Amino acid sequence: MKQLRDYIHEIPDFPAPGILFRDITGILDSGAGFSLCCDDLAYALRGIDFDLVAGIESRGFIFGAPLSEHFRKPFVPVRKKGKLPRKTVSATYKLEYGEATIEIHEDAVKPGQRVVLVDDLLATGGTMAAACSLVERLGGVVAKILFVVELEGFNARATTLAGRPVHTLLSYPGK
Amino acid sequence: MKQLRDYIHEIPDFPAPGILFRDITGILDSGAGFSLCCDDLAYALRGIDFDLVAGIESRGFIFGAPLSEHFRKPFVPVRKKGKLPRKTVSATYKLEYGEATIEIHEDAVKPGQRVVLVDDLLATGGTMAAACSLVERLGGVVAKILFVVELEGFNARATTLAGRPVHTLLSYPGK
Repeated sequence: MKQLRDYIHEIPDFPAPGILFRDITGILDSGAGFSLCCDDLAYALRGIDFDLVAGIESRGFIFGAPLSEHFRKPFVPVRKKGKLPRKTVSATYKLEYGEATIEIHEDAVKPGQRVVLVDDLLATGGTMAAACSLVERLGGVVAKILFVVELEGFNARATTLAGRPVHTLLSYPGK
Repeated sequence: MKQLRDYIHEIPDFPAPGILFRDITGILDSGAGFSLCCDDLAYALRGIDFDLVAGIESRGFIFGAPLSEHFRKPFVPVRKKGKLPRKTVSATYKLEYGEATIEIHEDAVKPGQRVVLVDDLLATGGTMAAACSLVERLGGVVAKILFVVELEGFNARATTLAGRPVHTLLSYPGK
């Protein structure tokens, strides 16, 4: 039987020379693969008490939205700056070159609500750390952080996401 | 009982003065609302023979991915230029000011495969028309086009999407 790992493509030199890209779109290319992935994400939340699912734009939407629908919990889109129509809170964080800003609606998380955050890939963890800070600024609690793929070489669990309840479906050594 | 329409917020003057924005994030703010919306999208596909679900970046991912998972069909992300790691086909289309380019993987659709395309909002229909052209360039067939909200004043059904099998959950007069 095919495992989730079997659906990950490896693309050399993308998005830049020297980088071996772990391509999660291979999961999406298969109805069975995507269903397996969604089941595994849902299974990772067994016994976890939570109120909301937040997905990081834009691949986090693909994996977060089915989870939200599965558990009948609201979906919080974490978006790039300027995309959300109502009042937002925003966080700016560093990228390798320059910086980026993400936002959520300021009424998306109520004080005390427990939030599951979802994205496809854990590398530096900078975007997810910023998303956690937004949840907490609104009084929410980070109940769980889910990724499909983790690149261990970035060491995010010991740095940007230290102390956070991170769960990943697939881990790879290196960057 | 709350209807899907009750979950849509109206935001004046967004993203520009004079525009009354129909905000679908109100659906996402409610577990029951999002579940109802996903059920309605799935119901719209009763009796439709299809192989793939394609979602338009990025809000189309939120509504398309649960549909893909529901039917255990592959999910095809239709993305902005430069985001997909493998070989792509691309289409450029006009915006009110300037133009935009979208892409799908060239192996995402096989000749003869029937594709359901999903996005949140039908306005001019330009992006969706471009997405249909990509599906057809790869030999695919547009089986159904689903939107959550349609703004009838743009007249997309008689122009950009003329002759296409469009279904929308909610329609509003005007732009």
